[in-house]
Amino acid sequence: MKSALDGIAGMKSALDGIKVLDFTHVLSGPFCTLLLKDLGAEIIKVERTVVGDIIRRDSPRTEAMEGGVFIVLNRGKKSITLNLAEKKGRDICRALAKSVDVVVENFTPGTMDKLGLGSRELCGLNPGLVYASLSAYGQTGPRRDDPGYDPIAQAMGGMTSVTGFPEAPTRCGVAMGDLSGGLFTALAIMAALLHRAKTGEGQVIDTSMQDCVWLLTAIEFAPKYFLEGKIPERQGNGHPAMAPGNLYPAKDGSVIIATAAFGQVQRLFRLIGGEDLVNSPLCSQQSERIKYKAQIDVLVGEWTGTRTREEIANQLKSIDVPCCAVPTFDQVCSDPQLLQREMIIEVEQAASGKVKTPGSLFKLSKTPGNIKFPAPSLGEHNLEVYSSMLGYTEQEITQLAGEGII
Amino acid sequence: MKSALDGIAGMKSALDGIKVLDFTHVLSGPFCTLLLKDLGAEIIKVERTVVGDIIRRDSPRTEAMEGGVFIVLNRGKKSITLNLAEKKGRDICRALAKSVDVVVENFTPGTMDKLGLGSRELCGLNPGLVYASLSAYGQTGPRRDDPGYDPIAQAMGGMTSVTGFPEAPTRCGVAMGDLSGGLFTALAIMAALLHRAKTGEGQVIDTSMQDCVWLLTAIEFAPKYFLEGKIPERQGNGHPAMAPGNLYPAKDGSVIIATAAFGQVQRLFRLIGGEDLVNSPLCSQQSERIKYKAQIDVLVGEWTGTRTREEIANQLKSIDVPCCAVPTFDQVCSDPQLLQREMIIEVEQAASGKVKTPGSLFKLSKTPGNIKFPAPSLGEHNLEVYSSMLGYTEQEITQLAGEGII
Repeated sequence: MKSALDGIAGMKSALDGIKVLDFTHVLSGPFCTLLLKDLGAEIIKVERTVVGDIIRRDSPRTEAMEGGVFIVLNRGKKSITLNLAEKKGRDICRALAKSVDVVVENFTPGTMDKLGLGSRELCGLNPGLVYASLSAYGQTGPRRDDPGYDPIAQAMGGMTSVTGFPEAPTRCGVAMGDLSGGLFTALAIMAALLHRAKTGEGQVIDTSMQDCVWLLTAIEFAPKYFLEGKIPERQGNGHPAMAPGNLYPAKDGSVIIATAAFGQVQRLFRLIGGEDLVNSPLCSQQSERIKYKAQIDVLVGEWTGTRTREEIANQLKSIDVPCCAVPTFDQVCSDPQLLQREMIIEVEQAASGKVKTPGSLFKLSKTPGNIKFPAPSLGEHNLEVYSSMLGYTEQEITQLAGEGII
Repeated sequence: MKSALDGIAGMKSALDGIKVLDFTHVLSGPFCTLLLKDLGAEIIKVERTVVGDIIRRDSPRTEAMEGGVFIVLNRGKKSITLNLAEKKGRDICRALAKSVDVVVENFTPGTMDKLGLGSRELCGLNPGLVYASLSAYGQTGPRRDDPGYDPIAQAMGGMTSVTGFPEAPTRCGVAMGDLSGGLFTALAIMAALLHRAKTGEGQVIDTSMQDCVWLLTAIEFAPKYFLEGKIPERQGNGHPAMAPGNLYPAKDGSVIIATAAFGQVQRLFRLIGGEDLVNSPLCSQQSERIKYKAQIDVLVGEWTGTRTREEIANQLKSIDVPCCAVPTFDQVCSDPQLLQREMIIEVEQAASGKVKTPGSLFKLSKTPGNIKFPAPSLGEHNLEVYSSMLGYTEQEITQLAGEGII
């Protein structure tokens, strides 16, 4: 693994030369800038003095008390400290904003404006600046000022209402409100950078976590409500458009079977029920077949229930029907497929030593993800950033630290 | 709403002038190209003759038998038909690939290679081409040839194992395997376009849905396993890093409360338990407090259980603690916040009339999402595309249709 990553270190990155001034904290915003870092941007993480990002020491932690999620989210970023409560700190912030390409922030809407660091002010100083804000509900609308975190965004965007079994709405265990917010913001920033490459002009981006969750949820669920007036039912491990498609019992556990192409359905039905089943209404096109979903699940479950997971997987593999057992989390973490694709790597933390993190999923032939870097200690890059970007001397930097400005 | 969108129609888009030859079908790939369309690219959707994308007529449907999910995913794209099983069809495909910027495909790995339309062949014809492949497991690794759909990718990436209640792993109701695959592929394509803008060179992108789900899941869950060797527990509506953070009972239903900042926890605990609770170990920093999550949930639940949802929401709003009831899907679809942000719009389908779809979440000040377009009928743009891109006459196009090539 080491040698392959070493090869990457010498390659170009898509965002080489792009500087991001990163005011984000916790999860959504740092995930956005992590993706930009993987694509080669230089991320300057601006943290509060003394404490830094509030998840720096959150559990789970290394023995050296570094937060594990913090490390995963911030590998490869530079950390500087800056006290935005002080006028001098805000002046420094404005000076930095003049020479970066992107600003990202995920404060409650209005926070940066109150500090005189809003999009209008900073884009006024730097017309090529891409200024991205990410918040629970966005910068406009009746709820813009309401606080919100992932569980709220998931619920308000509709994801919670369609996840889980009929008895109870269920949060997606993964923080899709935060993470999709970060992902869509990264995509919007890339779009703005492309526009800037053509025109030289920057712009302002306003991403709402609720919007993100809503878009993801609406793709498959809104048509049912808009066209039929029906509230989508929660399907547990089922899939609203698949029949067969569910978690089915096996002799020694359970398996997931998922079908989409009509040929898959026909081959599966031939295997479990012969030509009679293939010629029955249960084996019609999706729009007809989906009405028999419950019956189909019973039939498939009766067949799987008398076989082991291995028998099922082998038989379905031979007829090209997607199937798997649900791996436990530890099995996922040692999955040969993920390992071979370098999706689990190690970074060397100064304080904690080697720490495993997920790798980059950006498998681009010329500009692959650029990831072999530790997360910074708080203010680790104060000297480097403040001297190179603002020309401060070591003495001035020490003085600013003494004054509590950085 | 109409006037605001009319304003947008005259604005520039980030991907103006970018042509995408789109071989994707069903959900993951079409979501990728939907995002590129929202950002202004021209999407030429290449469909099989006669049937087209297999979800074109899937349920739920309009009265004119157009699939609702198909419309949502394909609004604004151009549709051409092309028979890749015929040599003449593949020759036409290679000719088209010479004059586009991006090719996207989501077939099983190897399918395009077998047709002579793989990345090596098409990038050989067009060195500036960005060629993106999206599949269940990616183009490399021991499982590259295995078929897989969203439920498989969710399970194999670990999301299913951390979603739901302790009794049973649960699929996220939203197809996050497909949709994150589309999202990350769009992001990778944008990165490749930025690299091309600087260097002129295209490249090949290999996205794995399993990798995407794994990265999303690993951010919060891998550290616990890697640092403590513990398999993360499923938390139902809880959040692995939040205490308090869960769905709590109310007199007339239930509410979600989510906390992250320490001040929020202190204010909430002061409200429900006074200074005694604020001074107890239950109100310590996150790394300590998280150990008492179960106790904290009981305390918060006792307080919420004797109040209505409205009382709780009002009290928590006054102390700036995030809280909401879980809206049902129909409530989400009429949420004033989403409506004001134009996240629900209408397109005019030639066959079906006005159809509601989600709007664009790309709120960019200079290049906003560009969305006011219907989904195409099958082959609707054959004449336009084949005449403008390949110079075919109307007569030649009619002949190709007669031969079953287009």
